[in-house]
Amino acid sequence: MSKPLEGVYAALTTPFAEDEIAADKLRDNVRKYNRTDLAGYLVLGSTGESVSLTDGESLQLVEAVVAAAAPEKKILVGTARESTKGTIDFTNSLARRGVTAALVRPPSYFKSKMTRAALKTHYLAVAEASKLPVLIYNIPQTTGISLEPQLVIDLAPHPNIVGLKESSGSLAFLSEVVREVPADFHYFLGSGHIVYPGLEMGADGAILAVANAAPEMSAEIFRLFKAGKKDEARRLQLDLVPLSKALVEVYGIAGLKYALDLRGYYGGPARLPLLPVDDKAKQDIAFLLKKMGL
Amino acid sequence: MSKPLEGVYAALTTPFAEDEIAADKLRDNVRKYNRTDLAGYLVLGSTGESVSLTDGESLQLVEAVVAAAAPEKKILVGTARESTKGTIDFTNSLARRGVTAALVRPPSYFKSKMTRAALKTHYLAVAEASKLPVLIYNIPQTTGISLEPQLVIDLAPHPNIVGLKESSGSLAFLSEVVREVPADFHYFLGSGHIVYPGLEMGADGAILAVANAAPEMSAEIFRLFKAGKKDEARRLQLDLVPLSKALVEVYGIAGLKYALDLRGYYGGPARLPLLPVDDKAKQDIAFLLKKMGL
Amino acid sequence: MSKPLEGVYAALTTPFAEDEIAADKLRDNVRKYNRTDLAGYLVLGSTGESVSLTDGESLQLVEAVVAAAAPEKKILVGTARESTKGTIDFTNSLARRGVTAALVRPPSYFKSKMTRAALKTHYLAVAEASKLPVLIYNIPQTTGISLEPQLVIDLAPHPNIVGLKESSGSLAFLSEVVREVPADFHYFLGSGHIVYPGLEMGADGAILAVANAAPEMSAEIFRLFKAGKKDEARRLQLDLVPLSKALVEVYGIAGLKYALDLRGYYGGPARLPLLPVDDKAKQDIAFLLKKMGL
Amino acid sequence: MSKPLEGVYAALTTPFAEDEIAADKLRDNVRKYNRTDLAGYLVLGSTGESVSLTDGESLQLVEAVVAAAAPEKKILVGTARESTKGTIDFTNSLARRGVTAALVRPPSYFKSKMTRAALKTHYLAVAEASKLPVLIYNIPQTTGISLEPQLVIDLAPHPNIVGLKESSGSLAFLSEVVREVPADFHYFLGSGHIVYPGLEMGADGAILAVANAAPEMSAEIFRLFKAGKKDEARRLQLDLVPLSKALVEVYGIAGLKYALDLRGYYGGPARLPLLPVDDKAKQDIAFLLKKMGL
Repeated sequence: MSKPLEGVYAALTTPFAEDEIAADKLRDNVRKYNRTDLAGYLVLGSTGESVSLTDGESLQLVEAVVAAAAPEKKILVGTARESTKGTIDFTNSLARRGVTAALVRPPSYFKSKMTRAALKTHYLAVAEASKLPVLIYNIPQTTGISLEPQLVIDLAPHPNIVGLKESSGSLAFLSEVVREVPADFHYFLGSGHIVYPGLEMGADGAILAVANAAPEMSAEIFRLFKAGKKDEARRLQLDLVPLSKALVEVYGIAGLKYALDLRGYYGGPARLPLLPVDDKAKQDIAFLLKKMGL
Repeated sequence: MSKPLEGVYAALTTPFAEDEIAADKLRDNVRKYNRTDLAGYLVLGSTGESVSLTDGESLQLVEAVVAAAAPEKKILVGTARESTKGTIDFTNSLARRGVTAALVRPPSYFKSKMTRAALKTHYLAVAEASKLPVLIYNIPQTTGISLEPQLVIDLAPHPNIVGLKESSGSLAFLSEVVREVPADFHYFLGSGHIVYPGLEMGADGAILAVANAAPEMSAEIFRLFKAGKKDEARRLQLDLVPLSKALVEVYGIAGLKYALDLRGYYGGPARLPLLPVDDKAKQDIAFLLKKMGL
Repeated sequence: MSKPLEGVYAALTTPFAEDEIAADKLRDNVRKYNRTDLAGYLVLGSTGESVSLTDGESLQLVEAVVAAAAPEKKILVGTARESTKGTIDFTNSLARRGVTAALVRPPSYFKSKMTRAALKTHYLAVAEASKLPVLIYNIPQTTGISLEPQLVIDLAPHPNIVGLKESSGSLAFLSEVVREVPADFHYFLGSGHIVYPGLEMGADGAILAVANAAPEMSAEIFRLFKAGKKDEARRLQLDLVPLSKALVEVYGIAGLKYALDLRGYYGGPARLPLLPVDDKAKQDIAFLLKKMGL
Repeated sequence: MSKPLEGVYAALTTPFAEDEIAADKLRDNVRKYNRTDLAGYLVLGSTGESVSLTDGESLQLVEAVVAAAAPEKKILVGTARESTKGTIDFTNSLARRGVTAALVRPPSYFKSKMTRAALKTHYLAVAEASKLPVLIYNIPQTTGISLEPQLVIDLAPHPNIVGLKESSGSLAFLSEVVREVPADFHYFLGSGHIVYPGLEMGADGAILAVANAAPEMSAEIFRLFKAGKKDEARRLQLDLVPLSKALVEVYGIAGLKYALDLRGYYGGPARLPLLPVDDKAKQDIAFLLKKMGL
């Protein structure tokens, strides 16, 4: 049984030049990614520095990806704003533009008030009003909000909520959720460290920052798993870990972009407040890519 | 020695009607506050649900306050965005509009990358480019970022950085900073629990959510302190604590707005994801206001 | 290739009667567990309320388990104290008493000083002086200290450090560590939610609280995995999740002990400050055990 | 109105020599402190590395302080253990030995179960059974447990609970509590940064690590405050801040002990896992003491 959105996605970086978005560079990157087995792209994710973009810039980037993506590639877009109204308005501004689904992280500024009831009300209101299918997004590292498995279980039956991206790195979350949600609910992993064991436990795919720099490896883990080649999938998973560690955790978006430059994509600078990586980091990254044969 | 911005400010709530901003209600509130001894107003603060507003709504609210404020009232505006560029752009969109200074909380989404170096680079870039004087803003409860006292000490000499609002509730922070910053640097307290002891230790004023509901008491603590009536200031401070606790901490913005309705201002609903207060909360708030003679 | 300590262990609860330890009840429990496929027992773990015991009580409990355990069962003992000296002294008081290895969680009281250097110095000193083989223990939920994967990698080559128990529930930790440690290093999972995927990724076993109440299921996951029956192992893993969730996370040690009483072991009360479970919790637990056929 | 325990106490360090306690050195230190205006001593506090001591060592240290303290000095002892029973047993082992009161931090290992109900049950059980008067102790930096102001208010009327030491550094906590507790309840500050403003708001004294190295200054702030010399008290408070920052926060117990050595007391090494301070730290500390005229 295969689900419509299954597979591995790249959570695309946003190219900048002179602190302005460079939509043409994004198109170039996507055209290169089109040749890989990636299932599609996430635009305006955390890795896309979405919180650092205006609405106008955001729309241009979505249009660029829609224009450049091969027809079979699915396009997910991060559309969360802090208010329920803002989230709905921005999500619906993307309707009828070729977007497959919206990925919605929780509001997080008013932390002490983001009770399970508040989060449930928010997601149900978004799901009701959204003209795009909705994916819930758990990423406590940046939001400081940990969605509870039970909240996801409560929301999953809504007809316009089609899945979850879970980036905390915990398979315990997956274990609690996977049997309690409808059969057509998509569970996406958000950590490049645990794609294979997550698939083994019932996940449907992954949406990965590291897939910008290593799209072939990332997609191949999924293909091997589906083909029943589990030992090979596990080995490739373990190969991916040092890349995921260095490019996503240690050096972050600026490091990932440097790796893109080395690999023939456009990486370029991150927007401040993200600082550029220093020379030591550049050497580490170059050494690692070489060692991994990339 | 008095400093130009000293005194107590209300961190204004944002009136909504049917989930749209109600700028006329904000003007009405400000005209009433004009009759009090408040030093001025903070527009688009945390209490103003600034993260839930569009840029267009934000500008309308600033214009409304500028138009309604009495000439002697200073006007501070929260202008932070997640990116350095976004913060500068929005701040400068307010230049030459009657705004006294910009209050800038730190970027917080990319938590693990917000090192002291990144925060310093951010604030210096904002201070260099901003056409408004800049106040640093520490509010770890919502941002998950704790500015270090040493960062504030490092930034304070910049000619366009004129002060700090510190909302963590810690006077230890004040104690570390107050002797190490230039004489004309403003230290504002952000917690209604500790206005008097903060002033006693060298703070220049406070920017308070509770001042929406209790502007007279809030301003009077400052007046009594300045008049040397310290015992009275302390007693009034302790009177303010249960209001600050209930309206700001326990029930939050929705509760504070309900208190405004009871006191003859326009409170109205908060914007989702903030839930309305329930009947039990309403009774608590009404009882408390009555008990405090408000 | 099998390792000497591999398999699933029960992290034994400590029986109390009238707030005194009941070593006889512990012996009875162990004799029943001897009939299962558990690889052995952890005495004085977190689940054993070790922090609530005196040294004298601790020794009695170890002796009781050593006396009652079947010869093939391995016996692990939690021996950490806050000081390096205290840890060494207590660990060595167990030498030549039939204990297989010591499980040592990090010191955690002086949190801000528990740098990587301090933790490394501590563990190396313990490993050097200990007359028992040492297992490192990562359990940030209770200690507030997250050991870094790199620390484990740095410590793993020491000849007297034979493995790790990792209870944060993260397989990302496992992915980072598993290829970087010597081939004879044991990686034990500490969460009942992720035994199967952890084994699939290279773990050698698990040390589980839930195995007190469900020793057969816990051990069977390991047996199925080793026999290459992965689909069955996964299904049994997912069956174990609601037990692990309810008995370990939601209701905790007092709930786990109630489940033991229902299953024919001695559970009894927890020692204060752990409160007893209420009637609602008892009903939930009874219902769950019945539903799972236990 | 003065209260029986009011004033400033030193939270004594524990002298070690060759990793064994050096009770004679502690007696020497106390005899020197007897000449200051300190109200008394806290033995076995966090600063005393109490978590790194055995019960036997602990008793010896208490006996040493009781023997050496001048008759007018009050003696507080930290007596917490993780279990309610262990806390009561150790506390009562100190009865009829000249100890004034027991300071009891909350159990903290089973963090997720330390609800307000569990903490209330624990403290009431300890208060009921203790043969010494009890002081509650809030120190979230080390325990990871934040006692709520309401819990303190609920416990304060118990006849055997005589006060609180609050070390989070928040005067907001004090503001919430001070009017809601009986008139004879003692509120002690645990941070050397905020002694003066705390006294100004109604605190009765302070129990300070920094008072080991600066007993005269620490006690003098209290004396000046009581004499109504508030400007002098504030200035001395601000003088104390850099010492409190460096010796307690930045360099911690090992740094504080080095300062003691420089000042003519016995400091000596901390017990592992606390690492010794490096040469750079020693220079900083020596420079600071010289600058402060100590």
